[in-house]
Amino acid sequence: MFPGDDEHLSDSVGIVKTKYATFEVELQLESGRLLGPTTLAYETYGTLNAERSNAILVTHAWTGDAHAAGRHSEDDRKPGWWDDMIGPGKLLDTDRYFILCSNVIGSCKGSTGPTSINQRTGKPYNLSFPAIMVRDMVRAQKLLIDHLKLETLVTVIGGSMGAMQALEWGILYPEVVRSIIPIAGTGRTSPMAIALNAVARQAIFNDPMWKKGNYKPEHPPTDGLALARGIGHISFLSDASMHLKFGRRFSARDGMFDFFGQFEVERYLEYNGSSFVDKFDTNSFLYLAKALDLYDVAWNFDSLEEALSNLQCPSLWFAFTSDWLYPPNQPEEVTRTLETLGKPVEYHLIESDYGHDSFLVEPEKFIPLAAEFLRKIK
Amino acid sequence: MFPGDDEHLSDSVGIVKTKYATFEVELQLESGRLLGPTTLAYETYGTLNAERSNAILVTHAWTGDAHAAGRHSEDDRKPGWWDDMIGPGKLLDTDRYFILCSNVIGSCKGSTGPTSINQRTGKPYNLSFPAIMVRDMVRAQKLLIDHLKLETLVTVIGGSMGAMQALEWGILYPEVVRSIIPIAGTGRTSPMAIALNAVARQAIFNDPMWKKGNYKPEHPPTDGLALARGIGHISFLSDASMHLKFGRRFSARDGMFDFFGQFEVERYLEYNGSSFVDKFDTNSFLYLAKALDLYDVAWNFDSLEEALSNLQCPSLWFAFTSDWLYPPNQPEEVTRTLETLGKPVEYHLIESDYGHDSFLVEPEKFIPLAAEFLRKIK
Repeated sequence: MFPGDDEHLSDSVGIVKTKYATFEVELQLESGRLLGPTTLAYETYGTLNAERSNAILVTHAWTGDAHAAGRHSEDDRKPGWWDDMIGPGKLLDTDRYFILCSNVIGSCKGSTGPTSINQRTGKPYNLSFPAIMVRDMVRAQKLLIDHLKLETLVTVIGGSMGAMQALEWGILYPEVVRSIIPIAGTGRTSPMAIALNAVARQAIFNDPMWKKGNYKPEHPPTDGLALARGIGHISFLSDASMHLKFGRRFSARDGMFDFFGQFEVERYLEYNGSSFVDKFDTNSFLYLAKALDLYDVAWNFDSLEEALSNLQCPSLWFAFTSDWLYPPNQPEEVTRTLETLGKPVEYHLIESDYGHDSFLVEPEKFIPLAAEFLRKIK
Repeated sequence: MFPGDDEHLSDSVGIVKTKYATFEVELQLESGRLLGPTTLAYETYGTLNAERSNAILVTHAWTGDAHAAGRHSEDDRKPGWWDDMIGPGKLLDTDRYFILCSNVIGSCKGSTGPTSINQRTGKPYNLSFPAIMVRDMVRAQKLLIDHLKLETLVTVIGGSMGAMQALEWGILYPEVVRSIIPIAGTGRTSPMAIALNAVARQAIFNDPMWKKGNYKPEHPPTDGLALARGIGHISFLSDASMHLKFGRRFSARDGMFDFFGQFEVERYLEYNGSSFVDKFDTNSFLYLAKALDLYDVAWNFDSLEEALSNLQCPSLWFAFTSDWLYPPNQPEEVTRTLETLGKPVEYHLIESDYGHDSFLVEPEKFIPLAAEFLRKIK
């Protein structure tokens, strides 16, 4: 044990366990198709108060999961994906709040998705899994909220696809949410973001191991998925962050004029892509990419104004200067409209060089502003 | 014939023909390797004056060629790639200048590249072709300039990789060039641009048809090359231009919830990528991508300052507000340094929504400024 370890552990939620809830009801999806039964993986941190009024829902991004904080075992090398945010004395203070994070449907991290067994056929869904929209993810989360007998949420907070879910919560269930905090989000996915997903998809379709989605779990299309992840990864970073991290350095093991010689940035992308294939299912990656592409808060409403007029609670928005995947002008379109509608809205453009990933890399830049906002939520 | 056709044709250079020059000398490349004999494909427009003093060199981008203006036959559907710029009365006025454009070495459009026959082995080079730097392309062009007995160039003008060549001309042959006009260029390729090329490369490497570069010309790795082009294509556009052109429109032939349903932007990228494979060789694409990645004007100099101190002539630079591949801060690093060194330099940041491709799409936005500059070149 090292000096300081105690201190460090004191702000951790400690050892946590993923739980599962299964709902027999069939979800009516936006596509018109039915999905059920549905299992949701989730974790909780902190204690629900007697009034059941101190719950916060944390929503995750594309390849995230329910494991937002703490460790699964003593020798777990890494904590949950937003451990900086969740724990005793942290922004999402487990001494005060009951924090809940659930894996979205369509994913492969314990919730029902394309790798799940279709109970009608006894086989994995694969491409017979229905298309999912972010709104469907939120409807499924609502089943869990009801199951846990939570009638109200202090806030719904998340980055990227998590921000989309937070906004959908505000629109769909205004009677439940007392605030929302969408971070690095957008009101609708831009053609640029769709284009990036399109080439990522194509990288998978090009891989003969993909077999139109009918690959065996033990033989996934690793080349295609690694490349798809590499493409996505670029869009999460920024020119500035790559300059800081890699510059134009050439890999020390390669000759600059070797045909297969690599720059450091290239090695990093390759490494990151190939380690990703052990962590994520290819079809889930594709289904969630589609959900991202289809995302438009005005979907099934007459206009953005009509959609946003459903929001009743205060909302707090953060965008990042170097985010070129969901650049600031996109959330600003939403916050401006909310202002026009007379809704309580607070927006901050945060200076950060870490691109779209800023919400994970530099939470300290927005935590004080979020703490201030949360203190005022009754 | 339609009314106005006469008028239209009057500003065209008309029917042109690609010429070829072969040099027996072996080029010493930056890598230390030798390349030769070397053939260069080129086209010329206009007439060389008696003093041989009115020549302008046009340098092309990544997948460009020597065919910059006019048509190859009466029924040619499209003119050369910079026909807006070159012809009687145009910026590069063929009534006044002798315009020369040559295909770079490493390409597949008539100049020596990986598809050429290695005279030592009697077989195509494929991956035994040496790595090429932009500086090598310029050294090869110098052979052509000497062959044509041109001792001076009014200007060297080009966009993207063409801008890199223009700058290298100014640095390497200050006694030849009287001005340079780099457009949408950079002093060194950024890690972001390298990262995009890295995933494009990987798309090709992943294609089993690539066979480590030993594919048969009639069976190229079309899936990999089309995807690589799609990735590149995204970086040539901008969020704004995609919004203008495609918005979030879904392909009319597809269902929005179909697994393989496509947005318009996605169809466009796919179409563009698959038509590209008939026009360009895969190994050439890879060699030129590497040349782009390796580009750094300070290469083999002690510093950017030392490299740029070789430039003796006036330079005119254009960057575009929506270019995120070579964003304005990159050429600005060069022009600021030139100013510090007391060199005659003129820089304009052009408002355009067309991203990196602005230099091809909206030349009218910089032509008047370039005309003004050219008038002053003695």
